[in-house]
Amino acid sequence: MALIVQKYGGTSVADAERIRNVAERIARLQHAGNQMVAVVSAMGDTTDDLIALANQITDRPSARELDVLLSTGEIVSSTLVAMALRHLGLDAISLSGLQAGIQTDSTHSRARIRRINPERIHRELDEGRVVIVAGFQGVTEELDVTTLGRGGSDTTAVALAAALRADRCENLKDVEGIYTADPRIVPAARKLRDIGYEEMLELASHGAQVLHPRAVELAQLYNLPITVQSSFNEEPGTLIHAETTMEPTNKVRGIAHDADVAKITVRGVPDRPGIAATLFEPLAARAISVDTIVQNASLENLTDLTFTVSRKDLRAALEIIQPVVLEIGAAGLVTDDEAGKISIVGTGMQNTPGYASRMFRALFDAGINIQLITTSEIRITCIIDQAQVPQAVRALHDAFELEKA
Amino acid sequence: MALIVQKYGGTSVADAERIRNVAERIARLQHAGNQMVAVVSAMGDTTDDLIALANQITDRPSARELDVLLSTGEIVSSTLVAMALRHLGLDAISLSGLQAGIQTDSTHSRARIRRINPERIHRELDEGRVVIVAGFQGVTEELDVTTLGRGGSDTTAVALAAALRADRCENLKDVEGIYTADPRIVPAARKLRDIGYEEMLELASHGAQVLHPRAVELAQLYNLPITVQSSFNEEPGTLIHAETTMEPTNKVRGIAHDADVAKITVRGVPDRPGIAATLFEPLAARAISVDTIVQNASLENLTDLTFTVSRKDLRAALEIIQPVVLEIGAAGLVTDDEAGKISIVGTGMQNTPGYASRMFRALFDAGINIQLITTSEIRITCIIDQAQVPQAVRALHDAFELEKA
Repeated sequence: MALIVQKYGGTSVADAERIRNVAERIARLQHAGNQMVAVVSAMGDTTDDLIALANQITDRPSARELDVLLSTGEIVSSTLVAMALRHLGLDAISLSGLQAGIQTDSTHSRARIRRINPERIHRELDEGRVVIVAGFQGVTEELDVTTLGRGGSDTTAVALAAALRADRCENLKDVEGIYTADPRIVPAARKLRDIGYEEMLELASHGAQVLHPRAVELAQLYNLPITVQSSFNEEPGTLIHAETTMEPTNKVRGIAHDADVAKITVRGVPDRPGIAATLFEPLAARAISVDTIVQNASLENLTDLTFTVSRKDLRAALEIIQPVVLEIGAAGLVTDDEAGKISIVGTGMQNTPGYASRMFRALFDAGINIQLITTSEIRITCIIDQAQVPQAVRALHDAFELEKA
Repeated sequence: MALIVQKYGGTSVADAERIRNVAERIARLQHAGNQMVAVVSAMGDTTDDLIALANQITDRPSARELDVLLSTGEIVSSTLVAMALRHLGLDAISLSGLQAGIQTDSTHSRARIRRINPERIHRELDEGRVVIVAGFQGVTEELDVTTLGRGGSDTTAVALAAALRADRCENLKDVEGIYTADPRIVPAARKLRDIGYEEMLELASHGAQVLHPRAVELAQLYNLPITVQSSFNEEPGTLIHAETTMEPTNKVRGIAHDADVAKITVRGVPDRPGIAATLFEPLAARAISVDTIVQNASLENLTDLTFTVSRKDLRAALEIIQPVVLEIGAAGLVTDDEAGKISIVGTGMQNTPGYASRMFRALFDAGINIQLITTSEIRITCIIDQAQVPQAVRALHDAFELEKA
């Protein structure tokens, strides 16, 4: 008998029929002798609908109230899945974040999990019940509801699996697993049988939207193997774990891309200590995530500093940066909201030269201009023109022969 | 400075504009120096929509899960009212039943409040906040969500007002107060300035849908004055309290009616001890509320027993009663699902003869046949043909000259 934690995303519970399918899937695993805990997201577009409702009331909803409002979406779906399981004759119970013992800090809209008290879940499991947990939420010590921000339900599932010492943690998605590249762009993209935490983290952080980076990080921290698989069939999907099978012929594991990048260049920045902090601290304070940062070599004590943000954050970033640019006496700002990002990822790359040059050559051969380059030990990222992103993904997938196992 | 508990029904918070109006009303009272607690129902048809959603999953939703599902409706509206107040510059916070300290028994779908721990509400009020409480819900000792059944938010408001020792408890409705009869039926109906608990309880229990009987009972228990008034204007409404002004010229206070009555007659019931209990216990067990019960004098040890239930409960009542009728050897069942009920209510009636005869005469003069009669000390009720209910209300309003103050 295994203890399995599953997570079903919003698409998988979007309507009554899909909820019934989810219940049947859980029921099969329970009948096979497993103890089952399932974390669910809100149905389909519920979260967006609730945000729209709040925006009808005010353009700046209180983060504390918005968290309470949004948390109802996952509560609704958790009760419906529990009802569907009971309809199948199983004993099932839904639990809110509070009831599931998920305690967070009080940073509303992007709370971090502090600890999990799994006592209630264990008790329900011991009584033979299937436990359905409302994802994406927790409570503070004061019992105020918080939400975990983007990818919150993924994080709930991994955190619960760790706290419950689950045997398996399965992420059921509307895709079949992790691919060498987005199969909508590269039809020959190959589903990976398994992948290491580090590689998955790089892919997830640089545009692969299948699994949230926080969930991967947490799984790595607890050395918890997790899978990504389809909620619509029984295919095995992809295993994310500590050791990845060495594949000597193919050291690039996958390609991540992000077509929603905005690029900001601050020109003529005085080259003195503390300038970068002055620029980036106010962005961090407003929770704007700065991605790639490149600073050119200084010329006559003036330098250009370029960074990228998510396109949706561009306006807010400019509002914050413009006064700072005046304050530090920089020459000006240049923005480009039509950038894209493409990355190759693979632990096999780290001790092997030549990957960067092969990447640049492949992009050059495809007529794609590289605007910025950043690297980590197991990743090389290029900022390019947004319109050329799909072409770049295909060119790199070909160049590194990722269709071959 | 007064502590005021208000309750806003679903119609009053049905959309963003109405929620803004509610917030403005609360804000005015807060600015006038009062401490404000507002209990809110779910927006418009939300509760029905959630029930429909559950019915898409299963025809017999678990009461425990349904309670959790339905409780989200009031949580949504409470957050939106809090957001609207903050938009107006007030400090406001929404609290769930759990956070408001409302502890109930574990009878899902019709839980009774056991105790209220108002510590958190007091703390929020002390910090100058307006507190918005999600109505209709509480939690068990296990922290499982319960709902209070029909009229639940009315009950929440009165119970909180009692626990907080509030100075006022205002029920804001889509009507202007308690009338001598339904003004949609009797245009000359007069709004009552005040009414006693007992009279209000009789009116509420016999068809006046303005306020739930449980809320009235609770107000009486704590001797808490409550008002019913319009949420759309500032008119004073009706005060419900312990002493009612004596009005010597008008001892009938009001007329209640209920057009949704079904009548069941069990014919040829053997007249022996315990038969009534045998009939009614299984109905009570299924929570079917039996209203009027009339048993005729016995003839040759056989009697007819007639009782009424709400029309929506007729089918379920028959399913339960039919086997019992066979078991006790009664002659058969006659049902009538087109009955109505009309009551006159007034404490002034109790020591004054002649009200019953005036009522029967007025109905007779209007050509209305009386099928059953029951009375309490301060109420006389007749079961009549459903189609004649409006006509009966008007005839009695005229006969007792209720349009005159």
